[in-house]
Amino acid sequence: MNAFGTIYRLTTFGESHGPAIGGVIDGVPAGLAIDPAEVQKQLARRRPGQSVLTTARNEADQVEFLSGMLDGVTLGTPIGFIIRNTDHRSADYNALAAVYRPNHADFTYDAKYGIREVRGGGRASARATASLVVGGAIAMQALAKTGISISAEVVSIGGITGSIAEMENVIARAKAAGDSVGGCVQCVVRGVPAGLGEPVGSKLQAMLAQAMMSINAVKGFEYGDGFASADMTGSEAADEFTTTSDGTIRTVSNHSGGIQGGISNGEDIIFRVAFKPVPTIAKTLSTVDKNGNKIELAAHGRHDPCVVFRALPIVESMAAMVIFDAYLMNRSARF
Amino acid sequence: MNAFGTIYRLTTFGESHGPAIGGVIDGVPAGLAIDPAEVQKQLARRRPGQSVLTTARNEADQVEFLSGMLDGVTLGTPIGFIIRNTDHRSADYNALAAVYRPNHADFTYDAKYGIREVRGGGRASARATASLVVGGAIAMQALAKTGISISAEVVSIGGITGSIAEMENVIARAKAAGDSVGGCVQCVVRGVPAGLGEPVGSKLQAMLAQAMMSINAVKGFEYGDGFASADMTGSEAADEFTTTSDGTIRTVSNHSGGIQGGISNGEDIIFRVAFKPVPTIAKTLSTVDKNGNKIELAAHGRHDPCVVFRALPIVESMAAMVIFDAYLMNRSARF
Amino acid sequence: MNAFGTIYRLTTFGESHGPAIGGVIDGVPAGLAIDPAEVQKQLARRRPGQSVLTTARNEADQVEFLSGMLDGVTLGTPIGFIIRNTDHRSADYNALAAVYRPNHADFTYDAKYGIREVRGGGRASARATASLVVGGAIAMQALAKTGISISAEVVSIGGITGSIAEMENVIARAKAAGDSVGGCVQCVVRGVPAGLGEPVGSKLQAMLAQAMMSINAVKGFEYGDGFASADMTGSEAADEFTTTSDGTIRTVSNHSGGIQGGISNGEDIIFRVAFKPVPTIAKTLSTVDKNGNKIELAAHGRHDPCVVFRALPIVESMAAMVIFDAYLMNRSARF
Amino acid sequence: MNAFGTIYRLTTFGESHGPAIGGVIDGVPAGLAIDPAEVQKQLARRRPGQSVLTTARNEADQVEFLSGMLDGVTLGTPIGFIIRNTDHRSADYNALAAVYRPNHADFTYDAKYGIREVRGGGRASARATASLVVGGAIAMQALAKTGISISAEVVSIGGITGSIAEMENVIARAKAAGDSVGGCVQCVVRGVPAGLGEPVGSKLQAMLAQAMMSINAVKGFEYGDGFASADMTGSEAADEFTTTSDGTIRTVSNHSGGIQGGISNGEDIIFRVAFKPVPTIAKTLSTVDKNGNKIELAAHGRHDPCVVFRALPIVESMAAMVIFDAYLMNRSARF
Repeated sequence: MNAFGTIYRLTTFGESHGPAIGGVIDGVPAGLAIDPAEVQKQLARRRPGQSVLTTARNEADQVEFLSGMLDGVTLGTPIGFIIRNTDHRSADYNALAAVYRPNHADFTYDAKYGIREVRGGGRASARATASLVVGGAIAMQALAKTGISISAEVVSIGGITGSIAEMENVIARAKAAGDSVGGCVQCVVRGVPAGLGEPVGSKLQAMLAQAMMSINAVKGFEYGDGFASADMTGSEAADEFTTTSDGTIRTVSNHSGGIQGGISNGEDIIFRVAFKPVPTIAKTLSTVDKNGNKIELAAHGRHDPCVVFRALPIVESMAAMVIFDAYLMNRSARF
Repeated sequence: MNAFGTIYRLTTFGESHGPAIGGVIDGVPAGLAIDPAEVQKQLARRRPGQSVLTTARNEADQVEFLSGMLDGVTLGTPIGFIIRNTDHRSADYNALAAVYRPNHADFTYDAKYGIREVRGGGRASARATASLVVGGAIAMQALAKTGISISAEVVSIGGITGSIAEMENVIARAKAAGDSVGGCVQCVVRGVPAGLGEPVGSKLQAMLAQAMMSINAVKGFEYGDGFASADMTGSEAADEFTTTSDGTIRTVSNHSGGIQGGISNGEDIIFRVAFKPVPTIAKTLSTVDKNGNKIELAAHGRHDPCVVFRALPIVESMAAMVIFDAYLMNRSARF
Repeated sequence: MNAFGTIYRLTTFGESHGPAIGGVIDGVPAGLAIDPAEVQKQLARRRPGQSVLTTARNEADQVEFLSGMLDGVTLGTPIGFIIRNTDHRSADYNALAAVYRPNHADFTYDAKYGIREVRGGGRASARATASLVVGGAIAMQALAKTGISISAEVVSIGGITGSIAEMENVIARAKAAGDSVGGCVQCVVRGVPAGLGEPVGSKLQAMLAQAMMSINAVKGFEYGDGFASADMTGSEAADEFTTTSDGTIRTVSNHSGGIQGGISNGEDIIFRVAFKPVPTIAKTLSTVDKNGNKIELAAHGRHDPCVVFRALPIVESMAAMVIFDAYLMNRSARF
Repeated sequence: MNAFGTIYRLTTFGESHGPAIGGVIDGVPAGLAIDPAEVQKQLARRRPGQSVLTTARNEADQVEFLSGMLDGVTLGTPIGFIIRNTDHRSADYNALAAVYRPNHADFTYDAKYGIREVRGGGRASARATASLVVGGAIAMQALAKTGISISAEVVSIGGITGSIAEMENVIARAKAAGDSVGGCVQCVVRGVPAGLGEPVGSKLQAMLAQAMMSINAVKGFEYGDGFASADMTGSEAADEFTTTSDGTIRTVSNHSGGIQGGISNGEDIIFRVAFKPVPTIAKTLSTVDKNGNKIELAAHGRHDPCVVFRALPIVESMAAMVIFDAYLMNRSARF
């Protein structure tokens, strides 16, 4: 299935080199004023070709909304949208038609479907994430009106934390070496009311994990103390409750990352996502083609040495869809 | 929602101190011989009270199958099952009725529902995972017949790796100190054919992550090189393809953890899950009650200092349900 | 799939002659006081053996609630329930093991699954509708608190309308002849606010139709003027709008049956359901067994000559689940 | 929700006078050769403006496929498609902005969403059915390759059966009178193997009913003997089994309409659908506007006096999607 969500539900489509990618957002409540410029801004953050460090492919990523709104206000009906592919169906990738690029989806798509779109990775291309950004950008605008904000930042690149300059150096060195680097993103959701999430099957962290692990190149997800909590004692990890001066019940610390028992507790929701290095590199790799013949492969042309910065709007978007869906589901929590 | 899966779909119910917990497994194909003893064996591995190091609560966890089978063979109709709670509705927890235990779901359930079962954690109790084990044990038996096996092991406890004796020491020390420890589990799925998983919305790692993050106390999920890949270069993380002597296309390494582009590639699927330390400890913690009054709380009686070993059948079960659902979904991949 | 609903979702299980039937109701909002006696009352209306005219099989149909409630108030967590089969696994039907009873599901279950529970029709037995009645009875109590009531009545039996005495005569004659008769049920839902239902995929009449056609022996569904409207002109079928003295917008007539464009308009929702005659009759019918051998078959023992009266609580229950699910879905219609 | 199906799943979007309508078909198996001309042909059958008897609005209804195919063969990934609205956002309907047209969805959409697209009926317009035809036309091509064919025909118009010339007279008279007429459609699905459909929640007739009742103007659904069976005896309605010369088990008659116990039995699936007369008529009707003011309304310009003939491809399309989804689901019936 190519869909996310129960009430607020995004179904996407599109290969990177077909006519267009796009999607349908079902379950958008009526009466929500949408600023398309804000959607476009999130798309721009995701776009390649934004600096010398990133790939030169430059697509406008202009989203066209086809339904579900009247004068910028949602109608309650599905929002259909498309983003045209400007590079589509070129002969650029033809040489790779039968080659299984290491760490790409070429082999697995062939194994599953017996057929694949060889240009640009097809459905497995990172380009498909643009549709997720559109779905998320709408959800973010809805959440903003309820006082919920979402913000992701890069916390490490190739093992470097803290220093942006150092991170850029690592990326530049990787690029010079014909290689790539991975990194880690942290996302914070602020202003979430206590009560979002479901007991067993749709715990908030489970839905966030599913959403994040759906992003290309993501290899890990953790929230709150995450993997570090495996090394801790119960007393170290405890989030004691206290009462603030205005009578609100809060936790003193936030080891839990804002979620307890699968349900938000009103504290900031904090999670981290690990991105592997981009698999498309200029260094030569050994691989095989469809018939099993050995091939030496080195990527030519435009390719990002690091996609982690570009992934920030995608992380925010996926989080926004999960939180907004949980927000709407929660309207049925009480009779 | 309290359900998992699209075709093979488990819906569970049950509070820890109500009459029973249980579930319905829909989408079980007909003609599958089920060994109930194997199900019971997985339940026994999950059960508390198995050693001096674990809690003394000893429930039989006897699963009663109510439908969907004839002489041990599945009918294709839903398998309903229940597990009676032997400790149910005791007055044991009454004192805690209004207290918000730190890192438990007491506060969030109240925030969400305005009402909660205060005995034993209710729906948020780890006891609810017994129903997941039943669903998973059936799936594992189905997978076994296709040559797929799933095995989880503890890879660290309280920061200790490699030495079981050391791990037991850490647990014993925590118990003596009235504290608890977390740990890390690794799970390997062997014999998975290439092709399981869906392109964008139901990537195999996304469904595994959702399933694992649904288990009580889990704080992180990673597959293949996981978080470590964030520090690697593309050439270090590359899984080059090769052709074996019998013409099979394989990867030389398995940084990808058996999944590429969201779809299994035929290599072992490897993932790790981080468990936080049990929040119920004998050490005194500060907290509040429902009305915001400050309370000092120390758990008495039977409580596990470490649940990681008991979590192994749960991890295996959740993985089994995900893989079997993907296996059935994949029957529609090709026309 | 053996489930109904999106938010308020019932998943059922159970063969007629296994240990029990039952189900799980997910998505029940918290804080709803449930009267189990009302549930039991609906079950009693469905039960066979209530008069000389109906079958003598007399099962208590005692529902046991296993979770999701505390002192009769819903917790927001799933309500699991079972109804034990008192007649289970008898040898009563053994002679029929290999015989395909005409108009039963024996042949189709074998064709689909290659295996079937031969005692009592298994999953296809009308007994399975008891679980639907439980799910519906809970929904009806929720709806009642919002001012919505549901009431079904028999409008024809074997072609007889209007006269209960005549209907009973038709049934008695059929019984005497070793035959059975069908009939028609009309259901009215009162107090529904305007706005329930979804534009294209989950129109209110579509969800009602799915629910009704899921009931054993139902062959047709119509709402408002139904099939008669196919013979009408647009001016005859028009529901003109007017404004009442208190400013409410209402329709003058109700050809639409309370639903326009898939969404309730605030008028009574009216629909009719056609039940075929019971296929189990004492008259001799020709059929075949599993191996294709010809067999003459005449049902012995207890069998209803007419199930239409017993179907009333089932019709009401299915309607209640559809309306309550739409009611909860509608909470997300507006931002 | 604006979606249909479990595996083969169509999600649609679009208002009649927005930029475009369209949809995403998820779950299309890979390797299926699609003839877009066949899709276009089904769309053409649905199109208004085909004769003097039907409305003059003439839209090309040119479907543009955006993804999921390579050289006309399905990739296994979602098929996204759009159909541009050529009439879009005209001022044509502005006068009706605040008027609630009788038997239209104007009032209910306002009641539900508090906002609506007033031009052309928006999402409730019959134009939205074009997206359903696309989804169905793809399913029909898949089914054709398995030997399943679907064919709908008009069986009555305004009470006239049997004579096309008489039916045309009735339509012409209605048009002359500024009125409209309804009618009845029968659909036959041939070549369906025994075994399609699910026991309780997704009975084949239930899914067909949901699909048919989702079509604009449909007021009733019946299969096999339908409503007539309510007047029959069990012996009259019996479909006795027999064995053909080649050993196949068949029914002698087909009162069941090809479905028993919710599952296809290998006979022709036969069902009928009742269409109410078009509500937009030239005759003057009383109604109110949004503020409750009384208004006399008479439709001007192009409007079909009868849409039943145009509904044939829609009925076929919805049936095709249901049958193909059941076909794919059935691949998981047996282990």
